[in-house]
Amino acid sequence: MSRAGDLRALLDGPDAGIRDMVRDWLSEPGHAPVADLPREAYRAQVTAWAEELAMDGGTAMGYPGEFGGLGDVRGSIAAFETLAFGDLSLLVKCGVQFGLFGGAVLHLGTMRHHERHLTAIARFELPGCFAMTETGHGSNVQALATTATYDPGTEEFVVHTPAPDARKDYIGNAARDGRMAVVFAQLVTGGEARGVHALLVPLRDPDGKVRPGVEIEDCGPKLGLEGVDNGRIAFDHVRVPRDALLDRYGQVHPDGTYESPIENPAKRFFVMLGTLIQGRVSVGGASITASKSALDIAVRHALERRQFGPPGGAEALLLDYRTHQRRLLPALATTYGLHFAQARLVDRLHEAFCLEVTERRRRELETLAAGLKAVASWHATATIQACREACGGAGYLQASGLPALMTGTEVFTTFEGDNTVLLQLVAKNLLTDHRDQLGELDPLGLASFVAGQVIGTIAERTAVRKVLGGLAADLLPGRDDGLPLRDRGEQLGLLRWRQEHLLQGAARRLKGGMDSGRAPFDVLLDCQDHVAEAARAWVDLEILEAFADAATASADPALDRLCSLYALSRVEAERGYYQEHGRLTPARSKAVIRTVNALCAELRPDAGLLVEAFGVPAMTAAPAVPA
Amino acid sequence: MSRAGDLRALLDGPDAGIRDMVRDWLSEPGHAPVADLPREAYRAQVTAWAEELAMDGGTAMGYPGEFGGLGDVRGSIAAFETLAFGDLSLLVKCGVQFGLFGGAVLHLGTMRHHERHLTAIARFELPGCFAMTETGHGSNVQALATTATYDPGTEEFVVHTPAPDARKDYIGNAARDGRMAVVFAQLVTGGEARGVHALLVPLRDPDGKVRPGVEIEDCGPKLGLEGVDNGRIAFDHVRVPRDALLDRYGQVHPDGTYESPIENPAKRFFVMLGTLIQGRVSVGGASITASKSALDIAVRHALERRQFGPPGGAEALLLDYRTHQRRLLPALATTYGLHFAQARLVDRLHEAFCLEVTERRRRELETLAAGLKAVASWHATATIQACREACGGAGYLQASGLPALMTGTEVFTTFEGDNTVLLQLVAKNLLTDHRDQLGELDPLGLASFVAGQVIGTIAERTAVRKVLGGLAADLLPGRDDGLPLRDRGEQLGLLRWRQEHLLQGAARRLKGGMDSGRAPFDVLLDCQDHVAEAARAWVDLEILEAFADAATASADPALDRLCSLYALSRVEAERGYYQEHGRLTPARSKAVIRTVNALCAELRPDAGLLVEAFGVPAMTAAPAVPA
Repeated sequence: MSRAGDLRALLDGPDAGIRDMVRDWLSEPGHAPVADLPREAYRAQVTAWAEELAMDGGTAMGYPGEFGGLGDVRGSIAAFETLAFGDLSLLVKCGVQFGLFGGAVLHLGTMRHHERHLTAIARFELPGCFAMTETGHGSNVQALATTATYDPGTEEFVVHTPAPDARKDYIGNAARDGRMAVVFAQLVTGGEARGVHALLVPLRDPDGKVRPGVEIEDCGPKLGLEGVDNGRIAFDHVRVPRDALLDRYGQVHPDGTYESPIENPAKRFFVMLGTLIQGRVSVGGASITASKSALDIAVRHALERRQFGPPGGAEALLLDYRTHQRRLLPALATTYGLHFAQARLVDRLHEAFCLEVTERRRRELETLAAGLKAVASWHATATIQACREACGGAGYLQASGLPALMTGTEVFTTFEGDNTVLLQLVAKNLLTDHRDQLGELDPLGLASFVAGQVIGTIAERTAVRKVLGGLAADLLPGRDDGLPLRDRGEQLGLLRWRQEHLLQGAARRLKGGMDSGRAPFDVLLDCQDHVAEAARAWVDLEILEAFADAATASADPALDRLCSLYALSRVEAERGYYQEHGRLTPARSKAVIRTVNALCAELRPDAGLLVEAFGVPAMTAAPAVPA
Repeated sequence: MSRAGDLRALLDGPDAGIRDMVRDWLSEPGHAPVADLPREAYRAQVTAWAEELAMDGGTAMGYPGEFGGLGDVRGSIAAFETLAFGDLSLLVKCGVQFGLFGGAVLHLGTMRHHERHLTAIARFELPGCFAMTETGHGSNVQALATTATYDPGTEEFVVHTPAPDARKDYIGNAARDGRMAVVFAQLVTGGEARGVHALLVPLRDPDGKVRPGVEIEDCGPKLGLEGVDNGRIAFDHVRVPRDALLDRYGQVHPDGTYESPIENPAKRFFVMLGTLIQGRVSVGGASITASKSALDIAVRHALERRQFGPPGGAEALLLDYRTHQRRLLPALATTYGLHFAQARLVDRLHEAFCLEVTERRRRELETLAAGLKAVASWHATATIQACREACGGAGYLQASGLPALMTGTEVFTTFEGDNTVLLQLVAKNLLTDHRDQLGELDPLGLASFVAGQVIGTIAERTAVRKVLGGLAADLLPGRDDGLPLRDRGEQLGLLRWRQEHLLQGAARRLKGGMDSGRAPFDVLLDCQDHVAEAARAWVDLEILEAFADAATASADPALDRLCSLYALSRVEAERGYYQEHGRLTPARSKAVIRTVNALCAELRPDAGLLVEAFGVPAMTAAPAVPA
């Protein structure tokens, strides 16, 4: 096989067949993204595509076999990731219908919900919504204001929107197609609040007429994803039967007695949310795919387009310019790194759905899903913008494919959790693990833990001594200390050191703040940037670990270089921190910059191959950007 | 006057009257941006608006009095900057018609062109194009391939597109409205190439029919600016009379004899381009306005929207979170800084058009215009994206105003010169100044210059000693050395030091490369990132100098803090460099981060006031983002 073929096989992994199936579908006539339809026609087209996909049966892949599926979580995510090469409105429409809506029925409902609805959902015969976010509450979902009050007299729930701020907002599939919604609401039984639960509420009759008590408003034009019919939903005392409650984690008996396998309401809520993790993983995966599409366009352009050059000679290719290499190649390296980290995450998720795993494993999964989604979606936004710029005026035309990528994925930084909020979640989980270690070691362990912290601090100070040596080395320019920067162990060591140092520092500051008697919320606010950085550093390390394994597994030297480029461009971006904490000498910090430049130059000849390996299907490789 | 009023007066400057006039126009019913018209209707609307503006006479403000203008360059830029609060397609349409097209006739043409066309251009009775960019050449304009060959037999020029790559591309006003174009082409007389010149070429008859030999194609859908009719133009041996040549810098006599006041063709070309500087300045100004609009939306949202909070208490305002302050407030500070630097640039430009200035002054102007445009447009792109994210799902709706800002300004990083290319131009000019100093000092000066360089290197190495002391101070956490970081002189010193250090380093590397006998182009490629950083650092310093003066002139303490926040957030972003070169100790570098955090917290209560002072007209403050 060719080098590009080998790399593609490595990237496509065990689900190469599924990925190729989706690529084939996207390459068929009539399945290419539409750039220029009026909104309503675009929405109709997206619905027609979704129905077509549903008829093929692939949309149920993640569901259990008895409902037409294969119970194949990994395969269904691979399909979704690949679909992101195509029209992004179709992708999001499918995500809402088969992932969010169907996923909520599957994971929060019980057998009767599955039997009644899953097949129809997978066939798009029952288009539905995931009605969680409200106008007033997006991130803080525990504070949703919609209520579902149980009436034992009629054995019904009364679903109600108590204020304009409590409308369900930005809900996909709502403005045009949705027949039913999974509505998240504060459950009240016997006059007592039971926390947020999900219920199935019909929105429209089979003929499409909005049902009495339901009010639906179109969200109107958006930045992108114009083929998705986002809307606002309000409920005026809408009554649904008792079995409309998706009752896996909380049951209401006919008399209103409430029962749950999970005692603690906060914990119950987070377990419920936790089952919906696949949405977050899918958005992360789609972000990576979009980055691939954009890099494919921009790198090919940079290998055709010439501008300026040596006096009298031919003009140089854009990719021969260092500034251009700097724009594209570290982003390419990061995209590969994210791909491998995502593949590892999906493997673990697949395993978690198939086997019983410990709570600790589940939390790890949640942490990685949140962190990767945040980093991958920010990366997509930055990369697509850089690619647009790297293609100049041509990149601004819809024909280049870049505008749809930009406007369609920009909101991925908000979807499935605002990225900044997600990083807080990551940090919280990491700190909890920290505390858990503490818990397991107690009582003797506590002392050694605190001592460990002190030792850490002392170590940092003594590191200063080493820095003194390093600085003296500065007088002999070019000398480096430590292992070579291209050594994988050194790269892992650098990222690991930063992650641990930041996390320990955050833990120390939080503890110090609490100990001084300040209000916990104020202490948290004061450390918020530090905490977010600790989370980000942890994700960076996770990516490098996955990338390092993949590079080792592959015989292609380009992958090894690409891995180094990823690692060192992260170190370069954080070299202020590394020097502040005595981990890099000034001379070595400068060497990082030089090595990044050298790696870019070395990877330049392989750039075309490296994007070819993404296997972007022909149709999204749009009308080529004019060279 | 209120604090916000005082600040607004300071920002609006001497042209407050003109700015308010434009604000009033934008606030009139029917002048608000359209978010959701089909493309052709949108284009028609934009044309109607442009005609309406032209009837009011304000569009000729920058032209000489005899053609209905006021010769008021500063005023015309102030009007353009303010117009950027409104529909961005209208802004760009006006920029193309009155700025680029009219400006080329004004600056490259002579009296007969002015008399024949300027009044009609100012009235939008002669819609026109600025046909410079070709499919194959955007940045490297000297290599354009369109030809204009003089035929002495008929005393005509034959304008021709020799290859598909030589089509004029992305040309505003071309697809629908343009009757005439200023076409940049390689002039050939007497069989000899004379370099790029501009000619007036009719495109359409008065009834709108495209003229024989001219071929116009619509560029089709774009990322944004859908109200502007961009197109591609090809010429098949189109004949225009001899006086179609805009002949201020090059005349062709009836027999084909070529004459120019500027002997050197390269120099002539750059003088010609130099007269078109106003376009670049205008794009920079519009970028700053767009940043203001976005920050106005996001800050107001952050002062209304609550999410999470202390247990049991009310939810906290978004702007109370440090991560949110970090997203918005340094961007706010930078926007103020850019505003003051832009005002200074416009003053100098105004002066240059009114008075005779030296070549050196002209070059300084060109350098600042290029650098500010690059930094301001990148800043707009990053800021608008951050603001979108800071508004969550609501920010993704067109109703928030943010999508139009994002898609309409993203291409400003490409308009009027790709930003990366512009930074190279800035660096080249700075290095030329460097060399000029050298020239003036020769022969004795050369020695002292080289000695100075060496002294610089030694100084850097001895700085290491100081760092040793600084590191020792690290053992006593929190101790800072040097002047307080909030000291304006210290801030200026830090940015100035970096700028000089980078520039000298770049000069040294370039000279070293040349001296070693390598090809100059290869040497340049090898230093390209260094050179671009030197340029960027110079712009940062220019911004801080202008901001510092404005802060001194104002009595409002918020402005002083905002100036410190701008300066220190730049230092923070480059703290890796400062430490590498021994200018900041690790302890002091950490203190920079703490001070940025502290300044954000101190400015938090003034954030609403600071955006109010931008005077965003009511109509663009769109349907408020739902809180």
